Amino acid sequence: MSAAVGANAPSETISFTELSALLERIFVTHGASAEVAAVLAHNCATAQRDGAQSHGVFRMAGYLSTLASGWVNGAAVPQVEDVASGYIAVDAGNGFAQPALSAARPLLVRKAREAGIAVLAIRNSHHFAALWPDVEPFAEEGMIALSVVNSMTCVVPHGASRPVFGTNPIAFAAPCAGRPPLVFDMATSALAHGDVQIAAREGHSLPSGAGVDRHGQPTTDPKAVLDGGALLPFGGHKGSALSMMVELLAAGLTGGNFSFEFDWSRHPGAQTPWTGQLLIVIDPARAAGNDFAERARELVDRMAQAGVSRLAGERRYQNRAQAQQQGIALAPEHLAQLRQWAEG
Amino acid sequence: MSAAVGANAPSETISFTELSALLERIFVTHGASAEVAAVLAHNCATAQRDGAQSHGVFRMAGYLSTLASGWVNGAAVPQVEDVASGYIAVDAGNGFAQPALSAARPLLVRKAREAGIAVLAIRNSHHFAALWPDVEPFAEEGMIALSVVNSMTCVVPHGASRPVFGTNPIAFAAPCAGRPPLVFDMATSALAHGDVQIAAREGHSLPSGAGVDRHGQPTTDPKAVLDGGALLPFGGHKGSALSMMVELLAAGLTGGNFSFEFDWSRHPGAQTPWTGQLLIVIDPARAAGNDFAERARELVDRMAQAGVSRLAGERRYQNRAQAQQQGIALAPEHLAQLRQWAEG
Repeated sequence: MSAAVGANAPSETISFTELSALLERIFVTHGASAEVAAVLAHNCATAQRDGAQSHGVFRMAGYLSTLASGWVNGAAVPQVEDVASGYIAVDAGNGFAQPALSAARPLLVRKAREAGIAVLAIRNSHHFAALWPDVEPFAEEGMIALSVVNSMTCVVPHGASRPVFGTNPIAFAAPCAGRPPLVFDMATSALAHGDVQIAAREGHSLPSGAGVDRHGQPTTDPKAVLDGGALLPFGGHKGSALSMMVELLAAGLTGGNFSFEFDWSRHPGAQTPWTGQLLIVIDPARAAGNDFAERARELVDRMAQAGVSRLAGERRYQNRAQAQQQGIALAPEHLAQLRQWAEG
Repeated sequence: MSAAVGANAPSETISFTELSALLERIFVTHGASAEVAAVLAHNCATAQRDGAQSHGVFRMAGYLSTLASGWVNGAAVPQVEDVASGYIAVDAGNGFAQPALSAARPLLVRKAREAGIAVLAIRNSHHFAALWPDVEPFAEEGMIALSVVNSMTCVVPHGASRPVFGTNPIAFAAPCAGRPPLVFDMATSALAHGDVQIAAREGHSLPSGAGVDRHGQPTTDPKAVLDGGALLPFGGHKGSALSMMVELLAAGLTGGNFSFEFDWSRHPGAQTPWTGQLLIVIDPARAAGNDFAERARELVDRMAQAGVSRLAGERRYQNRAQAQQQGIALAPEHLAQLRQWAEG
């Protein structure tokens, strides 16, 4: 690690490897098993490195308060069930979703390669991270991946007056010849929950049309949304329909909780939604006589010709490249906090 | 058929069976094979019956001018390839996509039941209809279905200045206990192309933010959109990312044309996009210990409690029930036109 003087705020830099190791120590110190700690630390460090600040080290306080509350089992051992030639189910054992994906991943890849498509249905799981880190690695191996995860009641369905859905993101990744994978991760709400939390912390307003207060009235105040208010779906009835689809796939199909079903009131400090996650992986090598990655490149080249200046995922790759050269910049007080947590 | 005097415009009514038979005769008279005519007629009559007017008999003139132009093969015989335990590819032979789906459907259902999930990749196909009729029947058999189809360049990607994508709809269907299936079909553009055509014909304005004119300037004039202008994605960058995903899945993966690739300039009258279609079908019976349809019902009951007054697909079911009782109402001049076409 080295001190760096930024143009604006003072910051220190830390390498990805060092940050991962530091976060891993924190998770272990606070009750996670070695396996779970390694997966979550890598995930969180990846988000920080790639500039996804709402899912980076900002999330650590929530992870720790959740572990301390007894709401999640940081040492859960996922149970992988080989259900059919294209179907895997995992009981995450009230643990995190990422270790469940990690445990099932080799079988999922094998099934997708053999059957052409395979589905991974994770239930009884907590997802408190960005969704793109779950799909991007499949595209790096030449496969197409789609994932949905439901979260916690904070989004009012189109035409309704009270929240039912979670922010319910959809993530997609596909290989692209000569470029990093095409990856997007979108909340089906007008804003992601982490963005509302950051806006509240930093005193920013929300865009109009994104949220309502506790009385169901439109508001741009992030604190009013967090204090008994709710978010709206993106894109009106269409985003609302997609959010419903996420509930049906991530919870209805997997056997997880819907966003409105779990009750963490007896676990003060709990922040992780106890729901489910679905992944669908397709092997485009099955598309005979057609190199999918080359075709994807033709599409994005045409998009660039039409004036698209930044492709899905591109900002993350730029941040990643910069972090690989210069390290990951963190405010000194945040780094000090992380080191303190690592000591217990 | 019987004459009926409506409250507003005069209309005649025709039963679903009669309308299907009439449309079937029209397709055969204009060069479709008996198999293709039966599938397309059922599809088009279904849309008209269910109130999806932009994809009902309104589409017939476009079908006929396209067949007359030699752009599509109305007698194509789809070639079904059993690629893997969860993967089917179909070469539609420059014919319509619906007969290709029809030819592959029994194998698709069998694979989804056995593997838990299966994909159908249709290429070299034309899709000129609503997408929900393709997915709804799977949900009626207890399965979950997702489909995407790309169309023709008329949507400007977010951040671009010129169109690349088609209207690129996404359709989803899921069973729901004690209710008809939950079904949605959404263009990833702010409006569907058929809605723009109908607005132009009827002299209505488009909502703002939906389209641009031939100079890339925002417009609410449907004729300006149709005359060298373009549509915008719904929901800004999110809808745009979904539209890109549809191109990648419906064309890149299947081996079909992207929306910007085909050139129908030598076929005056051609209106059907020559692209591809992807369907993914999941058998929720694989979700052990969890009745998906019951769970879906719990979700929609909660949505109703929160104030949702009309579920996805519900308006179509209401129109369908009314048509089953009272027949399908058509303007006399439209019905006369159909009868004339049936005679050649």
